[in-house]
Amino acid sequence: MAKKLKIGLFGFGCVGQGLHYVLNNSTGFKADIIKIAVKDKTKERSVSKDLITFDKYEILNNPEIDVIVELIDDAEEAFNIVSEALKKGKHVVTANKKMLAIHLEELYALQQKYNVSLLYEASAGGSIPIIRTLEEYFDNEELEKVSGIFNGTTNYILTKTINEKLSYPVALKQAQEKGFAESDPTNDVEGFDPKFKAVIIALHAFGLIIKPDEVLNLGITTLHENDIKYASEKGYKIKLTPVIQRLDGDKVGVLVTPRFVKDTNQLFNVENEFNGVIVEGKFSGEQFLQGRGAGSYPTGAAVLSDISALSHGYKYEYKKHVQKHASDFTNDVIITAYFRYNSNADLEKIKFEEISEKYNSGDYNYVVGKVNLENIIKNRDYILTNSLFISLVNDKISLNIKNIQSIKKENQLATT
Amino acid sequence: MAKKLKIGLFGFGCVGQGLHYVLNNSTGFKADIIKIAVKDKTKERSVSKDLITFDKYEILNNPEIDVIVELIDDAEEAFNIVSEALKKGKHVVTANKKMLAIHLEELYALQQKYNVSLLYEASAGGSIPIIRTLEEYFDNEELEKVSGIFNGTTNYILTKTINEKLSYPVALKQAQEKGFAESDPTNDVEGFDPKFKAVIIALHAFGLIIKPDEVLNLGITTLHENDIKYASEKGYKIKLTPVIQRLDGDKVGVLVTPRFVKDTNQLFNVENEFNGVIVEGKFSGEQFLQGRGAGSYPTGAAVLSDISALSHGYKYEYKKHVQKHASDFTNDVIITAYFRYNSNADLEKIKFEEISEKYNSGDYNYVVGKVNLENIIKNRDYILTNSLFISLVNDKISLNIKNIQSIKKENQLATT
Repeated sequence: MAKKLKIGLFGFGCVGQGLHYVLNNSTGFKADIIKIAVKDKTKERSVSKDLITFDKYEILNNPEIDVIVELIDDAEEAFNIVSEALKKGKHVVTANKKMLAIHLEELYALQQKYNVSLLYEASAGGSIPIIRTLEEYFDNEELEKVSGIFNGTTNYILTKTINEKLSYPVALKQAQEKGFAESDPTNDVEGFDPKFKAVIIALHAFGLIIKPDEVLNLGITTLHENDIKYASEKGYKIKLTPVIQRLDGDKVGVLVTPRFVKDTNQLFNVENEFNGVIVEGKFSGEQFLQGRGAGSYPTGAAVLSDISALSHGYKYEYKKHVQKHASDFTNDVIITAYFRYNSNADLEKIKFEEISEKYNSGDYNYVVGKVNLENIIKNRDYILTNSLFISLVNDKISLNIKNIQSIKKENQLATT
Repeated sequence: MAKKLKIGLFGFGCVGQGLHYVLNNSTGFKADIIKIAVKDKTKERSVSKDLITFDKYEILNNPEIDVIVELIDDAEEAFNIVSEALKKGKHVVTANKKMLAIHLEELYALQQKYNVSLLYEASAGGSIPIIRTLEEYFDNEELEKVSGIFNGTTNYILTKTINEKLSYPVALKQAQEKGFAESDPTNDVEGFDPKFKAVIIALHAFGLIIKPDEVLNLGITTLHENDIKYASEKGYKIKLTPVIQRLDGDKVGVLVTPRFVKDTNQLFNVENEFNGVIVEGKFSGEQFLQGRGAGSYPTGAAVLSDISALSHGYKYEYKKHVQKHASDFTNDVIITAYFRYNSNADLEKIKFEEISEKYNSGDYNYVVGKVNLENIIKNRDYILTNSLFISLVNDKISLNIKNIQSIKKENQLATT
């Protein structure tokens, strides 16, 4: 039998309290939270005062504690705690996607060096066991693509604005009232949160450690009713969908943008705060997983599942990283996009290589066509400042032709 | 690093050939099939003659072979092979749901006694990693229900008859031509195949070993166009959906019947040969998984994933069985059903406890109401012989009231 773990918990917010509840109401698995470190000395807590500490070293230096569970907001302080814990030979469970995405390389190295386990299922996909499924089940299969809806907040807002015709500010306010959006929603609505998750998933699906700064994230802050009208007329919904895709030459492209989604796509029916992930394998075809993307108990349950796995000695093996499943990350990628713009100057800035549709009227102009992702990346601020809107019209992305030729040339040189 | 496994394969049909292909075209994982045992001496094979044997002991007695992969049709011969292999200390991967469901208890005992691993992800849910997900991710969480579409053949036929208005014989023939249905389709269309899968899933979801003979399976052979018309008018689709559900008193009910499914249910959009599974956890809420339910490569990929897991020393721990997560299986269960009948004698036979709707016309009579599952079980042959049709109108099943009272009494006695 597995031994009963002693847990030191950092943070007692929504997820921390969810974990506490789930742990105390589980029949199968038993573990004890023996100390909880929190920041705010004035807040009333629902647990005994003896459990609470304001000094992180009361947990980090306690030899009795087997597992550190890190559930605080501040990514840099979280990294300090997690890296210190790993160096002390303690196993860690975390749900902090920002911390993970920014420090993946160091955290990977620390696990190897100190032979400890760092698990983070709750960091991506909400209650969907996506990391475990990629790590344990698709470990031996070459994947073509992972895409989905990784952010419950924006999906809730999009569901309300598109299906129920609420205005963006009203939908955002509703999301905040329901506890799905924070008071400063930038992280969600500008697509940073799903980008961090995409970076984590890219490691387990393709073996690549990618810097989040290099990945484009366009959110939904500039969505206009004309964009919604365009999508509705064509039978699309608009979803914020990260795409992580294998390209020619074993490169991998990653981007986070809005997308027009048809009713033949599984993501069409993923609504409100739900998350959905599509995994496309070379042999197994398309797998779809859906679950709750937010909430105290579902996320607490995901954390508990990691704690339970730890009690059985589980650690990620990062097999695709060890086996070097993909060669590299690239932004030299051609996408097919809808671009709503104001003036010809906008269109000159985001140079489209091919335009298949063009519409102009007094106050509404758009093109649909092929554009290099790098043009969008370098003009991200311009797009946001000028309230322009870009959406994928499908999720096929392909490696830039010039790039393919140069890869072929390199390969030729290498073999001669 | 994991060592390179040597595989002895039994059977070289659809799945065996799929495995052979997937194994030879995988980049990440390497293993060798060093012998294939087949029955038919006259058939031409796509592999070298040296690989083929007609003597099972050439594999079972070969000390070089690390893993036996069993992919033959005959459930009893499969059991002989698998149990002999386990007794010899060899790890086994199988996809034979009938063999597993019938012999679960013995196979569980053999794994414990000889300390070997028996994996069977490909036996249920097609390419959906449902067993692994239940075993590894939901191992610590109490589940409320697992339901879904576990049989691609009947789902294909139902899709064609309901969405495309094909007749049952035409749809069945199409399924056979596409390779989804066997020449004798009884196993699928009468619901035996999804029942075997439900029995396997019940062990991993609730820890119960249930005899398939005790579980009701009604299929789609008596589906009439009046039933389809009824469902369509109310906006339902008809799906063959096993339900495995926790009831009051920690009992578990299992049944396989057609069900009227609304568009708010995830299974509504699972079409053609696809499978879908809904897992409802006490804390994580509703998880939905969808994938291909049939096909040489997807099933071959599921088998390969088990082989890869074996190479890392993986075995099922049957945690919910060890922890005794549910007390027992029961058929003393009340369901809400639609029942199309011919004569009053039919209605007297299947005694409904409550009738909420009743319709009579010259050639079409039905009731909707509450009925005890045991009434249906003991009249299964009568229902099939007389071409009557029963469908759940929802998937809420509840323990019979009398039964609950007797459980309460038992508990009182136990505590006094």
